Formats: sequence, C-alpha cells, structure tokens
Amino acid sequence: MRTLGTTPAADGFRMPAEWERHDGCWMVWPQNGYVWREGARPAQRALAALANAVADTGEDVTVTVTGDQYAHARSSLDSRVRVVEVTSWLGWARDIAPTFVVDDTGRRRGVDFAFNGYGNRYPYWATDDQYARKVLDLTATDRYRAPLVVEGGAFHVDGEGTALVTAENLLDPARNSGPTRTAMEELLAAYLGVTRTVWLDRGLTHDATLGHVDNMACFAAPGLVCLTWTDDTRDPQYERSARALEQLRGATDARGRTLRVEKLPLPGPLHATEGEMRGTDSHTSPARHPRPPRLAASYANFYLSADHLFVPLLDPGYDDEALTRLARIFPDHTVVGIPTRELLLGGGNIHCATQQMPSPQ
Amino acid sequence: MRTLGTTPAADGFRMPAEWERHDGCWMVWPQNGYVWREGARPAQRALAALANAVADTGEDVTVTVTGDQYAHARSSLDSRVRVVEVTSWLGWARDIAPTFVVDDTGRRRGVDFAFNGYGNRYPYWATDDQYARKVLDLTATDRYRAPLVVEGGAFHVDGEGTALVTAENLLDPARNSGPTRTAMEELLAAYLGVTRTVWLDRGLTHDATLGHVDNMACFAAPGLVCLTWTDDTRDPQYERSARALEQLRGATDARGRTLRVEKLPLPGPLHATEGEMRGTDSHTSPARHPRPPRLAASYANFYLSADHLFVPLLDPGYDDEALTRLARIFPDHTVVGIPTRELLLGGGNIHCATQQMPSPQ
Repeated sequence: MRTLGTTPAADGFRMPAEWERHDGCWMVWPQNGYVWREGARPAQRALAALANAVADTGEDVTVTVTGDQYAHARSSLDSRVRVVEVTSWLGWARDIAPTFVVDDTGRRRGVDFAFNGYGNRYPYWATDDQYARKVLDLTATDRYRAPLVVEGGAFHVDGEGTALVTAENLLDPARNSGPTRTAMEELLAAYLGVTRTVWLDRGLTHDATLGHVDNMACFAAPGLVCLTWTDDTRDPQYERSARALEQLRGATDARGRTLRVEKLPLPGPLHATEGEMRGTDSHTSPARHPRPPRLAASYANFYLSADHLFVPLLDPGYDDEALTRLARIFPDHTVVGIPTRELLLGGGNIHCATQQMPSPQ
Repeated sequence: MRTLGTTPAADGFRMPAEWERHDGCWMVWPQNGYVWREGARPAQRALAALANAVADTGEDVTVTVTGDQYAHARSSLDSRVRVVEVTSWLGWARDIAPTFVVDDTGRRRGVDFAFNGYGNRYPYWATDDQYARKVLDLTATDRYRAPLVVEGGAFHVDGEGTALVTAENLLDPARNSGPTRTAMEELLAAYLGVTRTVWLDRGLTHDATLGHVDNMACFAAPGLVCLTWTDDTRDPQYERSARALEQLRGATDARGRTLRVEKLPLPGPLHATEGEMRGTDSHTSPARHPRPPRLAASYANFYLSADHLFVPLLDPGYDDEALTRLARIFPDHTVVGIPTRELLLGGGNIHCATQQMPSPQ
C-alpha cells in the first residue's frame, strides 16, 4: 500500500455510483457496549442477518472484528462471509472504511478520510481513524489520505460527476474548522472526482451524526434522487424535507440535468423504549453523546448493489409502502427487506453498516 | 472459508515443497516481552529487514500484527509489504500459520494444526491456536482442522510424497498423548499428502521447541537433504547429527530414491549474553520455559522461494562457509544473507519466521 501525495481527481479517479458493479462489501461487527445494548448481541444478530443476506446474492462480504470477537463472529456468520480482524470501536463501515475510487484503466484506489468520532460526539475513535488505512493495506490498495474529516455517510455520488451532501453535516465546525462551502466543494471534487456538488441544508431530524445525507436522500440513478418525506407539517422532519425538495428541484447535476425526486415515506416517528435504552453505557453513564429517544429512522438508508437493494424494515405501518415504492424506482433490482431495529438503536442502518468495494472498470 | 470434514490426502491435495512457486509469504511481527528483549524492538528490526528483503525479490509479503502495533509495524516496513491485523502472542509464522496444500486442478486449501504453545512450554497460546484459521478466513481458503498438535517447523516435505520429521518432536507426549509412530505417520499422510515419512531421532541441541526438524535438516531437492553438522565430537550436537546422517543414508524416499546428504556447518556454539537476556520476562520472572543460554543456531533454518534463499547470518566464523555451500547446493537460486541474531534470541530463525503460500498448480 503506497500513500499517494496526489488526489484522485488529479490522477483520473472517481468514486463510482453505488449501483455500479461491486467486488465486495465491508461491514463491521458491532461490539461496544456504549451504543449497543446487551453486549451488542442483538445488533450482532441483525448485522449477521444483513451480511448473510448480501452474501446470499453472490456478493463477497467481509465482516471485520476485534480479535476477541473473532470466534463469536465466525460462528454467527455464513461460511461464505469472510471474517477478518480489524480493530475498531464504532460499528459503521460506511463511515470508517475507505471510499474506493476507480479510473478508466482498470485501477482501484482508496480514499482514507480523517475520522474524529463524528465531531467528537462519540469517544474512543482513535482506532476507527486507522480503519480505512488498514483495509487498504489488507487489500493491497494504494491510498489517498484526505486532509479533511468526512465520513462516508456524508455524501452520495451519481458516478457521473455529481455529489449530494448536506451543509448541516459537511460544514460542521466540530469536524473541520475553516473550510467555506466553496473550499469544501473543491475538496470533494479532488477526492471524489466530482465536478458538481448539490447541497441540501439539513439531513434527518434527530440524526446523531448531525445530518448525514445517507439518512435523508440518495441517488437512485443519474438525475433521480430518493428523498425522505412526510406530509405531517407538525413533524420536525417536515420543514427539513420540504426545504430539501425545493433545493433538489432547483438543482442541476454535473451533466446539466435537472433532478427528478421520488419521495420515500418517513417511518414512525419511532422512539427507543426504556427497555431498549437500558444497559448501554451511553444511557446509564454521563453521556458525551446525548442519545435522543427519537430514532433517526429512514428507508433511504439502504444498500444498493448492481442487482439488489437491501432495505431496512422499520415500521409495519410504512414498510410495505416503502418496499413498493423502491421496487418501482428500481425496476431492475430485487428488493430485500431486512429487520434492522437493533441497528437503528445504535444510530444507523443498512447503508451505514456497509461499504461497497466497486469493481475496477 | 468452509471447514471440511475430510482430509487433504482423501481430497487429492498435497503440501508442495518450499521451492515450488509461491503466491506469497506470511510473517508475524514480534511483539511480546516474554521472548523478545527491549519490547521486541531489536527483533522487529530484524524481522523488518527479512520482510523487506523477501519483498525486494518480488514475492508478496504479509506481516501480521496485533492492533496496537499496526502503525509502528506499518512505518517500519516497506510499502510493498502488506501489514494486516491478526492477533497473536508468539512470533513464528511457520508454527502457527496454516500449512497450504494444493491439488492438480488449481485449488489451494489450508491445514490448521492444533497449537498448544510447543507442548505448553510457552504460555498464552490461545490466540495463536486461532491464527491459522484467521489467515484462511482472510484469504478465503477452505480449511482442514487437523486433530493433532503439530507446528509447521516440525516437518519438511519434498513435494513428491516424502516428509522429514524428528521423533523427539513429533512423539512428544506434551503435544499429543497417544499416537504411536505408525499412527503419526498416518496422520501426516492424511494431512500433508505424503506416503513416506523419514524419521530422525532428534533435532538440534538446546532447541526450545524440542527437536523441530527445520532447525536440523531440510530437503534441498527431491533426494537431497541439508543436515546441520559438526566434526567436534565433544559438542552435544555431534551425536545428534551423526545419528541423523546414519538414518538419512539408510532411508529411501517416497519414490524409492536413496537420499544424498549435504552438510551445513554448525555455527558457534553461540550463547546469549547477559545483556541480551536482560529485560525479557522469561529471564527475569519465574519462567515456565527455561531459556537455555546456549542458542539453537542453525544455517538450515533458511527460507526458500522458487529463485531465492534467505539464509541467517549467525557467526562470522562460519557464515561464509555456509553461504558458499548453500550456493553450491542451490545453483539456480540467489543466496541472500540476513543478520538474524535478534530473531535467534527469541528461539527461532528465518524458516520459523516465514510461511509460504504456494501457488495453485
């Protein structure tokens, strides 16, 4: 693994869209008692179900674990799932694994963004900041270390030059003190290989990441965006989504297309129960990260492969509608629903739990 | 990674000779203070020199580390060397990494022998017993778990059906209580794919492993064995080597060949100095493993690739003779000498520190 002093854009690399062909998927075994209840066992079962489901579709899945959880994880996962040691404290591969970029000559490289525990809202992030580098080392992939704190859940790309982000998240001074919107656009251009950034003001309400776009909206295809939506004007999500809709409809992408928007229903509102909160460090000790009882639940937080869509099942009142809409939006994909409330209790969902490794082009 | 209930021999697999083509080499970063002095830093420098030298010849090298040593190991090793997390306590890849086997249809699998700290002569071996399994998981290689305690340094093969072992080591009751010589031969036949086992009575004097053959003798080619030798009849090694010579000359291999023997000089005798022993746990605390001051030094403990030979430099009085003899024995290989006294202080040498991953055939 060489660490390169250049940038992906300068070297002709770009981040592919999530729907482009994958060589594999990375996930992290939930293992801390701070965000996960009951020693993380319920979250581990949910993660195992997700990993096994993705592996069932023929995609290579690697689940990383700390050393002392190896045997337990190994016995919980299908034999087709690879289990490897990579120490980490947090559980979200999307945010700590590398963002892979490709060029037109069959090469793949990785971007290692700095990580600081979501703007120091979570503790113990030092090993997580090493995570991307370790994955690139393990996969013998050349590395760019990006000089900015950004998690993988903070952006979506259409693979054709456009990034989708929120200002609430990307301009958070607890992550990066300094960069203006223009400077941040230049950094995204350099490290994701995009030429156009579409900004939303804010992400999902009550999101502990402070506005990760992947819990709010995502590209379904070039020119097509899925947006979390509620018609309930009293819900704090309403004005966030309404403003985002306005911004999306007023935007054009890198190819000059105006964006079409498909709405996904907002589940709930969902709240953690007392029983669910009990026994996590973040609940019972003076928490550095105040866990809100309202859960940041979103059907937009799905994982997309070239032929499958792995969608969280969150709320019996909305699951069918969400699955039906997504099947219509992705007519060539098979939609797989996976119960993920135990992942949601830790603050994220299926998209947060996964990081694709795109195939070289 | 599937764990198979059959055996390599039953499935048509065999262990290739070390000189057959490799896809890569595995090494373990020295990291405990029990066998390594000064926080293992001198041994780490020696291991790094070895890893970089093997990588220099174009062979893919992976060095495994525990999580907290990742950044240190990474910065000590050439960027071509892959550094990955695999927790272990001991430092010898030969003895804890899988033994890879191949068949004639392009498949490679791995044998995971049980490990118990060299017959409980070393403590803390639980994670080391998981090591082979983790490497097979990481490399997506199907696994045989062998129902016997054997380290990789306990056998050499010629790739054509013959294994070379010592009775002192393989019949050690602290490793396996029970198997007769015949039963052990059957197990080696099943797991290494050999049909003939050549037994030496004993290995090198003062070897803490109790007679690993790889510190005593090895195949240089089918029908050709290198044997550690001394003409000093007062040295305790003399009668060990003399008896081995007698046994080798009286043996035939799996193809019916009589064996030719090439002698390698015994260095020294070498002893650890007080300064070298100071500061290791095994020296300053009541040691479960009594470290003998005489070092088990051997030029036979080299690593062999398809075109290179990596030989320990041990004793200025014998190094040139050893290198010259080995260059004559391996006329088609380039001989690379590497100073390894700091590895030797921990009880092993270059062959112990390496484990080849043979290419599929």
